[in-house]
Amino acid sequence: MEPLITVFERSPDRGRGLARDMAVRWALEEAGLGYSVRGVSFEALRLPEHLDRQPFGQIPAFEAGGVAMFESGAIVLHLASRCPDLLPEAPGARARALSWLFAAFSTVEPPIVERESFIREEGHAPWFAERLPICEERVRRRLRSLSDALGARDWLEGDFSVADLAMVTVLRRLAGSSLLSEVPGLEAYVARGEARPAFRRAFEAQLSHFRRGEALA
Amino acid sequence: MEPLITVFERSPDRGRGLARDMAVRWALEEAGLGYSVRGVSFEALRLPEHLDRQPFGQIPAFEAGGVAMFESGAIVLHLASRCPDLLPEAPGARARALSWLFAAFSTVEPPIVERESFIREEGHAPWFAERLPICEERVRRRLRSLSDALGARDWLEGDFSVADLAMVTVLRRLAGSSLLSEVPGLEAYVARGEARPAFRRAFEAQLSHFRRGEALA
Repeated sequence: MEPLITVFERSPDRGRGLARDMAVRWALEEAGLGYSVRGVSFEALRLPEHLDRQPFGQIPAFEAGGVAMFESGAIVLHLASRCPDLLPEAPGARARALSWLFAAFSTVEPPIVERESFIREEGHAPWFAERLPICEERVRRRLRSLSDALGARDWLEGDFSVADLAMVTVLRRLAGSSLLSEVPGLEAYVARGEARPAFRRAFEAQLSHFRRGEALA
Repeated sequence: MEPLITVFERSPDRGRGLARDMAVRWALEEAGLGYSVRGVSFEALRLPEHLDRQPFGQIPAFEAGGVAMFESGAIVLHLASRCPDLLPEAPGARARALSWLFAAFSTVEPPIVERESFIREEGHAPWFAERLPICEERVRRRLRSLSDALGARDWLEGDFSVADLAMVTVLRRLAGSSLLSEVPGLEAYVARGEARPAFRRAFEAQLSHFRRGEALA
């Protein structure tokens, strides 16, 4: 059975590949798997039917055969564990990839999302200008550690893996801010990820989905 | 080779079991594995020797045989994948456990940590009182979704799994705030986790470690 992913009917990122289905689409493309897409409106995110698929009222959700899951980190790991090109089988290498995969979603992404929410929700608050540097410094601290760990290598550990897929996806959320361009090593790392044919296919697919949604609206 | 975990030499939580090694100790106890502990001082977190083990200068790190890893989520998953009591083997059930494991560390924990950091670092800022409710509402939103999903069940999906181990650990960070007691279903869920013999052993072990550190200081 072809995998089915649930994504925003009309993505708020306007097709820039920043919605959370992007990592899942990219992993599916790296694994060479076809898939179909179910669009959900913002209003429908709170309906029981969607909450059964995604208990926090977010996207994406993933279904294939007897498997129904949520959380992009979990979904890309599920796909990678069936694809040795994305997750090495040797225990030591697999453990490193797992470490970086969790680091992407649990250590690097949270301050990036915190800054995003702050800009979106508190842009008019009296404390905005004074507090923004606090949020930015939290992001910078993570980027510095990540850049030091990556060093001059192309990917986090040997060959490209699901860990890089996750980390590049997370760093792309900084597109349009100067925080990423301050760290040229990471900017080049993101560009390497974006140059992969599977990334391009995933990006084009989500962009077409967005354009179809706009055309129908 | 017995697993070795790297933890704070003197835990800033004063032995309340809130340091990030707690989930790893608990998973080791659930799996019936002995382990030894390496303490690291706050000053040593920035040394190359530690950054090789934990690139973000945090704890815990984990070593066993040819495996060296970091990120508590990754470590507990690594341990659980060798222990069918912690991670079911059937693909559908395993996918659900993975989903909740990532939800604990990527969706539920970030707003909890954001609130914690805000209280710790901005308690004297002029915006503190007015902004605290924003942080608290972000936590509440996640707790409501989680509580709705848990419903009247004991554990997130069928039997206790690594997903519950992770989620209970994350929710315990709210100990001492009223946010958890506002949601009695989740408070009872945490109490069920804390009542497990493996949790008690892990808790006692980190408390003894803290007391030894205090006695030597």
